[in-house]
Amino acid sequence: MLKALRDGGKAALAAALARLEREPDAPDMRQLLDAAYAAPCAYVVGITGPPGVGKSTLLSALIEAWRARARRVAVIAVDPSSRRTGGALLGDRARLVTDPADVGVFVRSMAARDRLGGLAELTLGAMVIMRALYDVVVIETVGVGQSETDVAGVADTVVFCVQPGSGDSLQFMKAGIVEIPHIVAVTKADLGTLAERARADVAGALGLAEAGGAGWAPRVLALSSQRRSGIDELVAAIAAHAAYLADAGRLDRARRGQAQLWVEEAIRDRFGRDGLRRAADLSLAPGASPFARIAEVAAALSSR
Amino acid sequence: MLKALRDGGKAALAAALARLEREPDAPDMRQLLDAAYAAPCAYVVGITGPPGVGKSTLLSALIEAWRARARRVAVIAVDPSSRRTGGALLGDRARLVTDPADVGVFVRSMAARDRLGGLAELTLGAMVIMRALYDVVVIETVGVGQSETDVAGVADTVVFCVQPGSGDSLQFMKAGIVEIPHIVAVTKADLGTLAERARADVAGALGLAEAGGAGWAPRVLALSSQRRSGIDELVAAIAAHAAYLADAGRLDRARRGQAQLWVEEAIRDRFGRDGLRRAADLSLAPGASPFARIAEVAAALSSR
Repeated sequence: MLKALRDGGKAALAAALARLEREPDAPDMRQLLDAAYAAPCAYVVGITGPPGVGKSTLLSALIEAWRARARRVAVIAVDPSSRRTGGALLGDRARLVTDPADVGVFVRSMAARDRLGGLAELTLGAMVIMRALYDVVVIETVGVGQSETDVAGVADTVVFCVQPGSGDSLQFMKAGIVEIPHIVAVTKADLGTLAERARADVAGALGLAEAGGAGWAPRVLALSSQRRSGIDELVAAIAAHAAYLADAGRLDRARRGQAQLWVEEAIRDRFGRDGLRRAADLSLAPGASPFARIAEVAAALSSR
Repeated sequence: MLKALRDGGKAALAAALARLEREPDAPDMRQLLDAAYAAPCAYVVGITGPPGVGKSTLLSALIEAWRARARRVAVIAVDPSSRRTGGALLGDRARLVTDPADVGVFVRSMAARDRLGGLAELTLGAMVIMRALYDVVVIETVGVGQSETDVAGVADTVVFCVQPGSGDSLQFMKAGIVEIPHIVAVTKADLGTLAERARADVAGALGLAEAGGAGWAPRVLALSSQRRSGIDELVAAIAAHAAYLADAGRLDRARRGQAQLWVEEAIRDRFGRDGLRRAADLSLAPGASPFARIAEVAAALSSR
């Protein structure tokens, strides 16, 4: 089935994702997820930051840069559901514009359903399938105040975007409420001195906070998506973090930790604290599919 | 028991809250919660905003102003648990300073355990008990990216604090990701023109967004806690919103809606989506205690 998806192109992938959404528990969907999880897979980049900061514009420029390097890119844009409007998506958000004829780019919007900005189990499934088919998978989401399974729980490299003249995100970072990202991109650097000050503020805040992971010092870059300046530097910084993770088994360890959290979060989402208490064992064996494990534990909990 | 608490002062309340934390399901705790919910009760004000914005300093000034008006005030300061440090509280947050000898002020810090910034079931219980004992209850919390039972789900009036030179919170508001507050307080107005620009930005953003409730136009105030300027205006704005709610049964309706959400959120937290599906009926009869309803539904779900 994975092979059929590889051969079928974007239409086949879109159809598979639509089926996953309708029948996430169908046996062949489960098989697909298990196979995709086991397949050699893409590097996952999380792009996060408050609304209005220019994430979509930056992402367009990044895609262009990766395509110029012949990398095939899949994107999941997570729309935070608005509570006031009862689940409608952001009306005026900037949309990512890509060339529909380019078979090397696939973009999918998904709603963050259960939690604000957090990633639903469904998003995890879609991400894992895309990971088996492309070279780079990007998850774009609003990045403050999320649950465990937020972008840091699925991405190998987290890029946090801030814009000159904003300070709240920085405060959240300083206070330890949001994870320290691996890379901070100060957007709209065409704003000149403001951008430079924002860059210095971020660098200062990161100096105050602890490092995002032992051995990796977070990088702060100023860039302008419009002028296409700083984009190559961002691509290089992401590659540098990927090289860092590739060393000493760090990527494998990080991904195993993520998959373990997916199991716990899925069981909590489905069965609550009561389910976490009743489940005798949530641990995921090395290399095992988290989707299979979730199904096993869920079946055990339901049968009682 | 409620009478004993009224007579016992701050020590008795502290002891009751400690017991609630240890044995939330004890029969006498349940009785206390039911009685407190039914009692005539305080007005609840939520103070929210990003870290570093000056919420604690503003709250000190507000308490002083309310005490000068002979209002008895209880405060719950919700500490967002840091994920990176595994649940530790903010180390460097400004602490609320009050006169320990003043029997008319009670302050309690609580950790937001399950969700980032969201209010755990325990916090709801503490809030309801305090509501039965004081004139004003204040919930102070970090206000971006919360679950359903956040401060808007417990407070009658929500005051959102922003500081000059920050913009992210505004973006979240514009995008409809956070609720529109009833009152916006632009803190640190001693910063002069920056503060005036922030006030204008907020007023503009609120103009773009829908109103927080039909008939109530959100108010934007600039204030300086240090210079004690704007505090009386904030007290008056809160009183004006209270008067608005008192009219036409609005407060009763809003509180009934909140209590209904508490039941749903508690069941979801304990039993997950599976529990919400299995629970035949989550509805709360008018005037009924949400705590009793949660216990009823939980017992039915556990017995199966």
